Amino acid sequence: MRGREGPPKDSMTRRDLLSMVGKAAGGAAMYHAMSTLGFAAESTYAGPIQLQGAPKGTTVLVLGAGVAGLVAAYELRRAGYRVKVLEYNKRAGGRAWTIRGGDEYTELGGFKQRCEFDKGLYINPGPWRIPYHHYGILDYARRFNVPLEPFVQVNYNAYLHSKHAYGGKPQRYRHVQSDYQGHVAELLGKAVNSHQLDASVTKEDQDKLLESLRAWGALDKEYRYAASSATSDRRGYDVDPGGGLMPAAVPSQPLKGDELLRSGLWKYLADGSEYEYQSAIFQPVGGMDQIAQAIYRQVKDLVQFHAKVTKIDQNNSGVTVTYVDANDATGVPHTVKADWCLCTIPLSILSEIDVTVSQPMLDAIHAVPYEASVKVGLQFKRRFWEQDEQIYGGITYTDLPIAKISYPSTGYGHPGKGVLLGAYIWGPNAYEFTAMTPQARVQEAVRQGATIHPQYLETFETGVSVGWHRVPFTNGCFGLWTEQARRDHYQNLCRIDGRIALAGEHASFIPAWQEGAVLSSLDAIQRMHARITSRA
Amino acid sequence: MRGREGPPKDSMTRRDLLSMVGKAAGGAAMYHAMSTLGFAAESTYAGPIQLQGAPKGTTVLVLGAGVAGLVAAYELRRAGYRVKVLEYNKRAGGRAWTIRGGDEYTELGGFKQRCEFDKGLYINPGPWRIPYHHYGILDYARRFNVPLEPFVQVNYNAYLHSKHAYGGKPQRYRHVQSDYQGHVAELLGKAVNSHQLDASVTKEDQDKLLESLRAWGALDKEYRYAASSATSDRRGYDVDPGGGLMPAAVPSQPLKGDELLRSGLWKYLADGSEYEYQSAIFQPVGGMDQIAQAIYRQVKDLVQFHAKVTKIDQNNSGVTVTYVDANDATGVPHTVKADWCLCTIPLSILSEIDVTVSQPMLDAIHAVPYEASVKVGLQFKRRFWEQDEQIYGGITYTDLPIAKISYPSTGYGHPGKGVLLGAYIWGPNAYEFTAMTPQARVQEAVRQGATIHPQYLETFETGVSVGWHRVPFTNGCFGLWTEQARRDHYQNLCRIDGRIALAGEHASFIPAWQEGAVLSSLDAIQRMHARITSRA
Repeated sequence: MRGREGPPKDSMTRRDLLSMVGKAAGGAAMYHAMSTLGFAAESTYAGPIQLQGAPKGTTVLVLGAGVAGLVAAYELRRAGYRVKVLEYNKRAGGRAWTIRGGDEYTELGGFKQRCEFDKGLYINPGPWRIPYHHYGILDYARRFNVPLEPFVQVNYNAYLHSKHAYGGKPQRYRHVQSDYQGHVAELLGKAVNSHQLDASVTKEDQDKLLESLRAWGALDKEYRYAASSATSDRRGYDVDPGGGLMPAAVPSQPLKGDELLRSGLWKYLADGSEYEYQSAIFQPVGGMDQIAQAIYRQVKDLVQFHAKVTKIDQNNSGVTVTYVDANDATGVPHTVKADWCLCTIPLSILSEIDVTVSQPMLDAIHAVPYEASVKVGLQFKRRFWEQDEQIYGGITYTDLPIAKISYPSTGYGHPGKGVLLGAYIWGPNAYEFTAMTPQARVQEAVRQGATIHPQYLETFETGVSVGWHRVPFTNGCFGLWTEQARRDHYQNLCRIDGRIALAGEHASFIPAWQEGAVLSSLDAIQRMHARITSRA
Repeated sequence: MRGREGPPKDSMTRRDLLSMVGKAAGGAAMYHAMSTLGFAAESTYAGPIQLQGAPKGTTVLVLGAGVAGLVAAYELRRAGYRVKVLEYNKRAGGRAWTIRGGDEYTELGGFKQRCEFDKGLYINPGPWRIPYHHYGILDYARRFNVPLEPFVQVNYNAYLHSKHAYGGKPQRYRHVQSDYQGHVAELLGKAVNSHQLDASVTKEDQDKLLESLRAWGALDKEYRYAASSATSDRRGYDVDPGGGLMPAAVPSQPLKGDELLRSGLWKYLADGSEYEYQSAIFQPVGGMDQIAQAIYRQVKDLVQFHAKVTKIDQNNSGVTVTYVDANDATGVPHTVKADWCLCTIPLSILSEIDVTVSQPMLDAIHAVPYEASVKVGLQFKRRFWEQDEQIYGGITYTDLPIAKISYPSTGYGHPGKGVLLGAYIWGPNAYEFTAMTPQARVQEAVRQGATIHPQYLETFETGVSVGWHRVPFTNGCFGLWTEQARRDHYQNLCRIDGRIALAGEHASFIPAWQEGAVLSSLDAIQRMHARITSRA
């Protein structure tokens, strides 16, 4: 679902310097130099931006009070610009959205939901985790004192489930993970030991390889992955080791290699090793909207809610934006004028608005379809996943349409109610779920989830659902760039067009993530500021 | 370092039942039955114990107010026994110990340390994490409302370091993890594709295997693990994908397979997959002593501190324990009598005390040496590991004597000072460190750690160290059972001897863990209670 690409850039200067240091002073010195050469070796974010010398009285209109718009409003005002923000919703944050008890939400088609979750419980229908290398959004959390807590991505005691494998019985992640790794190690060990890799691996390296496979794959002395305390020290025991004169530990029996391969459950194993899901990974305490809300508090006086933009016009002297106030039954259009405009409206919406920009940018605006996604939040009478099944946080994966069940990464051991993410769906299944009524989505998520957690049936209380193609402010989840579209349109989308620049996750190589919104916003306002100050 | 073993027990009854359910009603019903048959399928802990019918006035003397002793005192009094606890230290918890600013500690040999950490900072010299399947200790945390937070075991952005590899330059965990997995997948793919596994894997399974290796190992269409956005989506980029018109992403170059094998860094990769270190894994908020302290608050009135046991005697009618009060300069011995005694004193201490038990138990008491271990806590002016290197929690592994550096799994992003675990040492290096003065241990940990984190040199402030063989109340870290010792002595150690039973991690198959202390204590007092009530 990601759209990363683009030619390598020339980074020889920095590398040359490091190489020189390395040659002159050895590895440790080189490493020291690396640490001090930048905010982070791989970072795209060099700390808070410093825009200086904004011409007095210059006005910028920001469209959208999501993460991109809020960041822009905050930084532009700090630079000395006069800023105004128009926002369609009656709240800031956009897709950085948390639904709590008492919240109401009406989707396209008119279905209205009122969330009945108990106090303190929530779901994040949009982004729900922040990787450690999303430096920009993490820095805004730091600057505005938003506390973070670990998001548990991988839980070895959660399940991997296929309706076609193991008679539909969910398998613990630890079983599939240990056994796949063990079987792979055993097979490769077999190939090495029967001299089948002699042509490609030296004898010395074969010895190292065998040693490593034994340690890594929990193989025995004959390089077999077989039931033992060694393999049970990975996958767990049938009866755990105990204390005193309790019954002796019983090692568990690994899943058979051929069945495991055919089960397809291995396809979920790499998720936790993905750069975007690796530990450490975080969530804001209390809901994902907390970072956006913290930035919003800085620029509250600049933001006008309920403003539905209907036209974006520009000429040589400025930008004129027309909007209607959703609270105004007459529907009278209003206009705002500004010297410059940063538009963060999703392309799925912007493509339906009359915008005065060049044909290349217009083409770009129309070139990006939006991915479908659905999330369902379910409240249960008790945290049965912890109490009955010892699953604290993390994700169960299934090939049922609900795709994932995610357990809350907070409130561990709480004796009261709990809210699960009961479905997190992409692609065709997401379209099907979006087509249902909100109530039907919840019912279906409960029905499917109950095949994994029978406790659903007795403990389910209430649910909410968001199908992103029915979300009025985005008409979809995120900009789904193809490689071809990137080549043809990305530059045209991001170049400042007259007095208008675009920003948001759609104008980034980190689609669907808040970091894409932050970086695209910072990049756009830096270029806009440079253009303004070079003219002044 | 673990001593798990023992013959499999016959668990046919439960399995037979499940099998019957499965045959009669299919997988889902079987699974449902499994969920409802017990507290947890693999658990050694079935929820709070219920001891009933304690004969009125029966007294039990508990020796030691560590986790085992506290649990016993709490449960025995709840069952109706009259309980007294003697504790050598002036605090409860034993090895479940947290050192904070202002704490003083004098080790064997007379070296006294005063911890100078800032308020809120601490180290846990003993246990520091709780696996999700340590049901007993987790249940005490739950019952006494001790909040838990995730312990970050695996951090993909922490380092793996060998002084002999890569010129001494630390490698990010994500690089070693992705590349080892990728190279293993590539090698096995090569073996499959050159028909070298035709004899042992069917054609259908070979296809599945290749498909799985590509997904799991991030291989390209030719089953190669090579620099690309696919491999960088695991190991990270040289330049991360950005927003707007920022420089294009630059994929990173994988480590070469042969160098990686020779580096030995793969030996640290399996740690996070070990049953005892798998996610979810926890720490109590505020320090590991919080659970023991919470149980202690329940039995505070029963515990006498500063009581150094010098003799444990028993006859047919009761137990007499002699102790001296450390606050009493005269050293006059005192005695306490009780009907029964639960002794949780570590064997390393108990073996030096005059105890009236049978020869087999005496032999067992003397049969278990104690493992050496050292921890060093270091306070720094700032959390440079987060600010400069984006390492939030988790562990850096090194083949330097310090062995590990662990970053705090709490207070992420805090702008102030921070405390690292600067060394966590087992075995021969631990003996060497224990032989140093506390100050020299700290200096050496700083010197070694600075080769990984040069920031040590400018930001180090103060440190504390605990060498467990110099800890007066344990003379070592934990009972290091060999398989032979288990066979010869374990049953004799755990059997109730007259009116005396032993408990603690040393009387369990989960050595060094608090869970071993909890389970051995519960098992011992259940057997003791059964014996008492059967006699009454």
